[in-house]
Amino acid sequence: MENPKKVSSHKHIVLTSHPGKSGKKSVSVHWGESDPIKRGPIIGTLANPNQRNAIGTHSGSYAVYRALAIASGALQANHRADLTNTSPVVHIGPYPSWADANKIVSLDPFGAIVGEVFPSFYEEGYDIRPTIAVTKAHINMPELQDSVAKGRLQVDGQIIKNNGNLVVTKVAIDPVWYLPGIAKRLNIEESDLRRILFQQTGGMFPELVTRPDLHVFLPPIGGTTIYLIGDVAAITDPNRLLAVRVHDECNGSDVFGSDICTCRPYLVHGIEVCVQTAQAGGAGVIVYFRKEGRALGEVTKFLVYNARKRQEGGDRADAYFARTECVAGLQDMRFQELMPDVLHWLGITRIDRLVSMSDMKYNAITNSGIEVIQRIPIPDDWIPEDAWVEIAAKQAAGYYTPGEVPTATTLAEIKGRGLGD
Amino acid sequence: MENPKKVSSHKHIVLTSHPGKSGKKSVSVHWGESDPIKRGPIIGTLANPNQRNAIGTHSGSYAVYRALAIASGALQANHRADLTNTSPVVHIGPYPSWADANKIVSLDPFGAIVGEVFPSFYEEGYDIRPTIAVTKAHINMPELQDSVAKGRLQVDGQIIKNNGNLVVTKVAIDPVWYLPGIAKRLNIEESDLRRILFQQTGGMFPELVTRPDLHVFLPPIGGTTIYLIGDVAAITDPNRLLAVRVHDECNGSDVFGSDICTCRPYLVHGIEVCVQTAQAGGAGVIVYFRKEGRALGEVTKFLVYNARKRQEGGDRADAYFARTECVAGLQDMRFQELMPDVLHWLGITRIDRLVSMSDMKYNAITNSGIEVIQRIPIPDDWIPEDAWVEIAAKQAAGYYTPGEVPTATTLAEIKGRGLGD
Repeated sequence: MENPKKVSSHKHIVLTSHPGKSGKKSVSVHWGESDPIKRGPIIGTLANPNQRNAIGTHSGSYAVYRALAIASGALQANHRADLTNTSPVVHIGPYPSWADANKIVSLDPFGAIVGEVFPSFYEEGYDIRPTIAVTKAHINMPELQDSVAKGRLQVDGQIIKNNGNLVVTKVAIDPVWYLPGIAKRLNIEESDLRRILFQQTGGMFPELVTRPDLHVFLPPIGGTTIYLIGDVAAITDPNRLLAVRVHDECNGSDVFGSDICTCRPYLVHGIEVCVQTAQAGGAGVIVYFRKEGRALGEVTKFLVYNARKRQEGGDRADAYFARTECVAGLQDMRFQELMPDVLHWLGITRIDRLVSMSDMKYNAITNSGIEVIQRIPIPDDWIPEDAWVEIAAKQAAGYYTPGEVPTATTLAEIKGRGLGD
Repeated sequence: MENPKKVSSHKHIVLTSHPGKSGKKSVSVHWGESDPIKRGPIIGTLANPNQRNAIGTHSGSYAVYRALAIASGALQANHRADLTNTSPVVHIGPYPSWADANKIVSLDPFGAIVGEVFPSFYEEGYDIRPTIAVTKAHINMPELQDSVAKGRLQVDGQIIKNNGNLVVTKVAIDPVWYLPGIAKRLNIEESDLRRILFQQTGGMFPELVTRPDLHVFLPPIGGTTIYLIGDVAAITDPNRLLAVRVHDECNGSDVFGSDICTCRPYLVHGIEVCVQTAQAGGAGVIVYFRKEGRALGEVTKFLVYNARKRQEGGDRADAYFARTECVAGLQDMRFQELMPDVLHWLGITRIDRLVSMSDMKYNAITNSGIEVIQRIPIPDDWIPEDAWVEIAAKQAAGYYTPGEVPTATTLAEIKGRGLGD
């Protein structure tokens, strides 16, 4: 074996528990200010620690890989991003919600346009990274081809191209948490939030407790992607219709088409409704959150699948939530309370067609001040046979359905496939 | 507004920078021991801090959501998972590679069978969580239906059911890093790895530098999923064929079918080869890593898309990698050096059909001691038109191709769609 490489990065370790001795003050953040200069840029890079005004660093959980890249010598610790030509392809905002510290607390509304609104800071040498990127794409899902073939969608040459491709604007968003706002959303004290975030992650980021002066946290979690369909201007136009599907990641269904849940079919249905709405002169919005297995993660999800299918009486709708609670201690960790932020970032105040049955999503959206005109469930014939356990259990628990709510007797009768089948 | 909730969790903050005063010693981990009792369980829960022998906590990046759940009062801090009926549906291992501290360093080989191998620890009250879960599923991708319709795949009633569903065994894996092994893999000193992981994440987990006695780290990153197709026993049978595709997440293509890259088509092609191999009496393995945008993350990826499509001369194969380097400072952060661990966990020593053109993946696999008989590229007619920029750039950079390697002149001629098109 070769000798281990010498790594050139700075060897002096400063434990981040307490403020540095350097007198230079970082830029203050005034969350909710409408003027970006008054609000101040969020600085989470490590190029110059004195400039930092946030806890953690950029790219969510990919920060760990970046640290590996620096450790291995593949990336220079002082690399500054060359942001030439990277600015948003479509302009979004500002909207009144950007200036409301209560409407947006889990992303930086100025995150896409840092190059545009903070030129003086760049000139002074601040390393400000975009936390949002906006681009355009053509997408093509086989199910949408089928929708065209069956006449549910029409090729119009603009939204759906002649080759069947769907034209979208897409947006990637890294999480930026304003801790006082997150605490308020969860109805707890900020100090409790900070302490428990520190304790219950095994001691991640002591600054959560030692630096109460830093209110912005860049958590190492997955981000959010938005797909905008149709004219972006229609999203905020009160005279044009808006369809929205808010979708939480389910890799097993979204990518591989597992038949135990309705995730990919519901996503496709959401896109179909968005395209129909856009083609009628409105717009469609798909939001995709990295919250695998209700944010319990995939290991927990698969453990629960086994427990559901092996329990006495087999996989039953009436025991659907109970198995998750046994393993995880609760049914759901997605915190839909934070979800509407992305809708407010888009300036949405009314959703004409919400493609979702979830009462948690509906309540979070309407409680945040967005009006919902119509809720659209997944059509019955899009539900895989083994997924009826999930759908019935959710309907009985309060999910929206225009049909009958399953009774206890019905729930006990709805069963899924066994593990060996 | 209601008054903020009182949160009952323990208020006394112990900064984790230094070992606790409690005299009770946690169980030592002897990584690479074949006997699980001698190896010792990995304990990353926070129920009893004295028991912990790892840095960080379970569920990768979802640990942050669990902390939120505790902060909000939705989850009890002392919840112990009820693991009844959750054990693996299919038995995997142990294999000789499990007892080689150099072969597996980024997952816990005993992670799926903790309930089976550590009963005495459970009796003593240790809170040991599975880091791997094994279940069965039926999956259905529209493209596979097309493969059946076109006669490339056959319905056999077992691997492909009469309704077109594909029967799979699937495995979810949370990351468990043995830091001395990770450092060796990257050819750096463990102390440098630990220091830079701490510094370059903005101070995540001071224990990385203050607790050199703890060698196991549970990083807050996404995990890995394996899909096993066919008879699991065939994977390690030298007389039966094995097909493998190692796939890194690309949400834009894998889920939404973006036409700028080949990710979903390549994944489907991999599954097709796996099914064909399984139906011929062998087995197929698909490994899915959460390493979006070459582990640079999706914000960086979209920034690069804009820079590629807006640069002078438009999106060109000869400038494909350069744009990524400008923004991110390097082309790739996936660290394929760690990837083969999952193959060794499955006991793989020979791959007959590796469905990949990546030289990085090929080199990592063969350097880890696994023999590769044949490399299978994606068929040309599966490549979306706009993705030729990527494929040609990769072929010129050393990716495997049975055809001609593009010349500089060819590269300069291969162009993608503009942003406005």
